Amino acid sequence: MSSSQATDETLEFRPRFGADGLLVAVAQDAVSGRILMLAHMNAEALSQTIKTGIAHYWSRSRQSLWMKGETSGNVQRVREMRVDCDQDAILLMVTVEGDGASCHTGRESCFYRVLTDTDDTPRLRFVPE
Amino acid sequence: MSSSQATDETLEFRPRFGADGLLVAVAQDAVSGRILMLAHMNAEALSQTIKTGIAHYWSRSRQSLWMKGETSGNVQRVREMRVDCDQDAILLMVTVEGDGASCHTGRESCFYRVLTDTDDTPRLRFVPE
Repeated sequence: MSSSQATDETLEFRPRFGADGLLVAVAQDAVSGRILMLAHMNAEALSQTIKTGIAHYWSRSRQSLWMKGETSGNVQRVREMRVDCDQDAILLMVTVEGDGASCHTGRESCFYRVLTDTDDTPRLRFVPE
Repeated sequence: MSSSQATDETLEFRPRFGADGLLVAVAQDAVSGRILMLAHMNAEALSQTIKTGIAHYWSRSRQSLWMKGETSGNVQRVREMRVDCDQDAILLMVTVEGDGASCHTGRESCFYRVLTDTDDTPRLRFVPE
């Protein structure tokens, strides 16, 4: 596979980090298909994730490497890892250990609120777990 | 619902755009659960998406508002829209019109390559549509 091949058809893994040094990563439950969370990875988080098979992210708020579940036990074990066409986004298909929460609120998914149809002002409602 | 309530429990929709004025949006097939693509939204793209029920994004490369499928016909019709705990990411559950492609390569999903287990250097392989 030539290294000059276009990013979207090459079989070389060439992650394209943004100006901030980060990729966006989306974690999806490997069994249910539910989207659990969105987070960011720097090169070290990506490398640790590949090496260990456990999701690592870069915490933008804490400015530090973050092994998901390190304190809670809700480790995300990576079953499959995909990259998108322009190689600036990563999809992690995971199974979650511990009590299964991926959200800091204790919920399984961070996406627990849906926009409701309103006349002018969008509102949210909670969706059941 | 008090406006002082924490971002992660409020039912007020308070999208938190980044310093670049953008949110990350993930599009998921509403029926199959397959993740189709990741993209970005500025305030106008978000507003147009809510108003029309059709996914609009902000193209960072073209620096312009982008109605997905405007030229290809592969419009993403939004069935449900969710926001994450800190309201800086949006999940669109969509059905895709036209030939069903969401990727510029003509594939259904942008995530058509999986990282393979290798000794040292990660490689990619194509996954069937």
